[in-house]
Amino acid sequence: MITPLTHKSTLDERGLGRLVEHLISGGVHGLFILGTTGEGPALPRSLQVEVIRQTCRQVAGRAPVIVGVTDTVLESAVELATKAKELGAQAVVTSAPYYYAASQAELLAYLENLAAAVPLPVFLYNAPSNTHHTFDPATVRSAADIPNIVGLKDSGCDMIYFHRVRESLRNHPEFTLLVGPEELMAEAVLLGGHGGMCAGSNIWPRLYVELYNAAAASDLDAVRRLQSSVMRLSTTVYRMNGRESSLLRGMKCAVAELGICDDGMMPPFEPFGEAERTGIRQYLAELGRDSGHE
Amino acid sequence: MITPLTHKSTLDERGLGRLVEHLISGGVHGLFILGTTGEGPALPRSLQVEVIRQTCRQVAGRAPVIVGVTDTVLESAVELATKAKELGAQAVVTSAPYYYAASQAELLAYLENLAAAVPLPVFLYNAPSNTHHTFDPATVRSAADIPNIVGLKDSGCDMIYFHRVRESLRNHPEFTLLVGPEELMAEAVLLGGHGGMCAGSNIWPRLYVELYNAAAASDLDAVRRLQSSVMRLSTTVYRMNGRESSLLRGMKCAVAELGICDDGMMPPFEPFGEAERTGIRQYLAELGRDSGHE
Amino acid sequence: MITPLTHKSTLDERGLGRLVEHLISGGVHGLFILGTTGEGPALPRSLQVEVIRQTCRQVAGRAPVIVGVTDTVLESAVELATKAKELGAQAVVTSAPYYYAASQAELLAYLENLAAAVPLPVFLYNAPSNTHHTFDPATVRSAADIPNIVGLKDSGCDMIYFHRVRESLRNHPEFTLLVGPEELMAEAVLLGGHGGMCAGSNIWPRLYVELYNAAAASDLDAVRRLQSSVMRLSTTVYRMNGRESSLLRGMKCAVAELGICDDGMMPPFEPFGEAERTGIRQYLAELGRDSGHE
Amino acid sequence: MITPLTHKSTLDERGLGRLVEHLISGGVHGLFILGTTGEGPALPRSLQVEVIRQTCRQVAGRAPVIVGVTDTVLESAVELATKAKELGAQAVVTSAPYYYAASQAELLAYLENLAAAVPLPVFLYNAPSNTHHTFDPATVRSAADIPNIVGLKDSGCDMIYFHRVRESLRNHPEFTLLVGPEELMAEAVLLGGHGGMCAGSNIWPRLYVELYNAAAASDLDAVRRLQSSVMRLSTTVYRMNGRESSLLRGMKCAVAELGICDDGMMPPFEPFGEAERTGIRQYLAELGRDSGHE
Repeated sequence: MITPLTHKSTLDERGLGRLVEHLISGGVHGLFILGTTGEGPALPRSLQVEVIRQTCRQVAGRAPVIVGVTDTVLESAVELATKAKELGAQAVVTSAPYYYAASQAELLAYLENLAAAVPLPVFLYNAPSNTHHTFDPATVRSAADIPNIVGLKDSGCDMIYFHRVRESLRNHPEFTLLVGPEELMAEAVLLGGHGGMCAGSNIWPRLYVELYNAAAASDLDAVRRLQSSVMRLSTTVYRMNGRESSLLRGMKCAVAELGICDDGMMPPFEPFGEAERTGIRQYLAELGRDSGHE
Repeated sequence: MITPLTHKSTLDERGLGRLVEHLISGGVHGLFILGTTGEGPALPRSLQVEVIRQTCRQVAGRAPVIVGVTDTVLESAVELATKAKELGAQAVVTSAPYYYAASQAELLAYLENLAAAVPLPVFLYNAPSNTHHTFDPATVRSAADIPNIVGLKDSGCDMIYFHRVRESLRNHPEFTLLVGPEELMAEAVLLGGHGGMCAGSNIWPRLYVELYNAAAASDLDAVRRLQSSVMRLSTTVYRMNGRESSLLRGMKCAVAELGICDDGMMPPFEPFGEAERTGIRQYLAELGRDSGHE
Repeated sequence: MITPLTHKSTLDERGLGRLVEHLISGGVHGLFILGTTGEGPALPRSLQVEVIRQTCRQVAGRAPVIVGVTDTVLESAVELATKAKELGAQAVVTSAPYYYAASQAELLAYLENLAAAVPLPVFLYNAPSNTHHTFDPATVRSAADIPNIVGLKDSGCDMIYFHRVRESLRNHPEFTLLVGPEELMAEAVLLGGHGGMCAGSNIWPRLYVELYNAAAASDLDAVRRLQSSVMRLSTTVYRMNGRESSLLRGMKCAVAELGICDDGMMPPFEPFGEAERTGIRQYLAELGRDSGHE
Repeated sequence: MITPLTHKSTLDERGLGRLVEHLISGGVHGLFILGTTGEGPALPRSLQVEVIRQTCRQVAGRAPVIVGVTDTVLESAVELATKAKELGAQAVVTSAPYYYAASQAELLAYLENLAAAVPLPVFLYNAPSNTHHTFDPATVRSAADIPNIVGLKDSGCDMIYFHRVRESLRNHPEFTLLVGPEELMAEAVLLGGHGGMCAGSNIWPRLYVELYNAAAASDLDAVRRLQSSVMRLSTTVYRMNGRESSLLRGMKCAVAELGICDDGMMPPFEPFGEAERTGIRQYLAELGRDSGHE
């Protein structure tokens, strides 16, 4: 879930309320807040807490709320996780500290320390393009033996990695394997993964719910048809300009364009200008017309 | 297809004959020689020609023979492709010249020049881990308009890339989309790709043929079972030691262990020693026992 | 400057006092705290503030204190910089937020916003191996026009980059150009740079002061002799084991071995064990004997 | 040395004659042909041989001729080296085969095999941006014990690496340490290296000869002045457009602009068009006016 922000870097509370309803009415199975898409690492602590509080209040138990707590400081991650439990969240997601390079043994020790101190179930977050760490399959396998580490969100975009992890955990079906990039969710589920955390749900939640359902039901005709919509969104709205931030800015702009919330962003990012916004609007109209998503 | 070599860097002709029969009796739909797995770029020209000649002679029309002609010199690539046609091959595979970094415009111009001079159908070869070039989806899309460029072998290990290419060519169903890494063939086919060039076929061709058939028939139970065998081979035989050459050396060793051909290798590589060979033997026995492949 | 920590992740206050005296009596021209070597990004805010407070108190005006404030949250960076001024520091060092990839325009806008809000002179910190951003020479050139951006600490290890920046700023001699890695300080100064921030000073401050003086005085015989000591330290103490954290752990271990402070480290790192410590001790003895540094 | 080519990919023989005279009259200490700048890996074998023959004939013993023989096939590298000796060259330069990733042990074994078969002194060529291999300092150190391996040309752009190699070979002063990028030659020599192979010599050989002389004589004022010219050339002529080939195309264009030879290029590159050529002309005029090089 993106974090609805005003252009003054404050929480767009009413937007957040509408966004939660948009997602839940779209049928999502849970909400992941303060992740990469949620600008979690760019938000001051007070805003992070506010996002958890407002989201949990709005959701009111209708779906699990999962909170990203990745931090460069162990103590801060634990602190946020503790707060998340207090405010009613169901689980947390964490990567390793992302400023320093570290060995797999150090990453595993970190996970052990963190899990021992965190009062909620923990999902690992493999996100090398942001954290510049990868949890080796053997590290994931070892981490799966830690009692409250319950799954992996793999955003590494490397399906061979995903299959290696899955193969090494085939006797641990209770360990949940999710993929991050929505473009890979279908094949992950078709080959035995458990689901995805699809950022595009902020725009059209039903598309991803239907894609998941089709993959889970082995309905390949539907999978291919829906995957085509996923790819068209991915190659238009997320690539509005060639800049590194085009995915995040495009997504926020699209959600704003749908009238759901404001498109403020935390530094170093800024909302799209009018030219790009017009482009996003046209893309949405075109994609919505072709695919029936609106 | 690997290139069977003696320990004196000469062609193991009888081994090549046995390997071709092993593959054809395993049901493969075609043979790809002189690719990355075939040590094509490490073979002197005379040996390259000998491999084409012997393979075409042995195959004798029972399956198409596709020849890797990637070279750093345009003229040499064209020369080898011309020779390949003369010797009876059906198509060639080429990447861009791989010593210099080049822009997409330069890569496309190169492909145009090459295709115009080559008397056979051409498959593009996207192989960034070896060539350090990637053909952008837009470049592939443009190349697809060149008459004798007929398909893409994508060894980039990036399924989002593969889906982007597929989406951009959805109105060109005659353009053949294959994946390189065998670990990704199933999902590529499930989502609309046309097949794979699976190096593991050198060991157990039937495994990959069955996996392809299962994926093409949307038989997901079979896909998951066979994919598990594929992953076990991939995480054992191909990772015998931690060195960069472990995939190629492991594969050659496994094929030698099956009694098919010698395991000589071109510099800078050398065959596995006895310790590693024993390990490969054990892996094969274990995997063969569990999966029924032998 | 490293951050002296106990094995319980608390500040080793007496160690910090000794370390400051060690550095000042070694002749350093300033102290840089809470940088990469100082584990700045791994310290909770309260500890960061404590480090600034204790260091400024101990230094008591004998040398400028420069504070690393790099953060993924603009507001937090500004907050720490404000606190640094309050506690008596002379300048701050900042990179761009390091979780998200960003364009040069976004990095420059960030620097403008940060500089406008920070009440101290600001040094840019180019540290791609940790932040995975590089400030392009043109970005540095533009940032140099912002009034309180006064210099660059370049830890990119790319001397062509450094020369490009220097050339583009040759009409701005008041803009201070420092290099991060101590192995490159001599050549930077010989070719017109202004100095370095040498982590090895924590061990043998006089070595780096003498090397700077020799380079500034164009005494090439001395430069070569001292550079040899620098390289021997760099290839032994900083590479005790092959792990990613060997530089930082080796340095902390060496300083502890000299009796200056405890070698506690923040997660995900841990102090060296006895075997590695013995190795460090031997290196120090050998290097000290050969070079006269002790 | 660049390879003068016509626009039909044939050797510009008269241009090559003029270029050799330009270099020798500029005072260079040797000529390096068929390297990266010489488009060696993109030239067919017959053209490579022709370049060696014509260059040796024109030089006629006035300076050593050193030949790049890097190839993906060991046998081909040896063959070219043998031919080079026959035609009168004094040494060869080689990297490791550059298509496959390989371990340091494999790289070292390759160098041993190559050196044993080559009838000339051999320089190692560390060129990771083109070959995607790095010779570890320990590998260079071991290779230095092979009788006819006599030096290293380091084009890795990493001066810490260069200093590590130099330190490890400080008891082997007869092993020649050269840097590739002209921007780093001065500091390499100031700190104890032996020289550089400066591609910019194709344009203004005297600039690099003077810079070398100034560095060798420890004349830092002259070094800084000349280095400034080097950097201005590097940031203008070599960066005419943002494409990957801008260095090579800019250099060829500049040499053609000076009336020395034609600017044909091997695929996948093409000469600059008129707009870029005008830009190069202006840069040369400006730089020549400011620096006295013309």
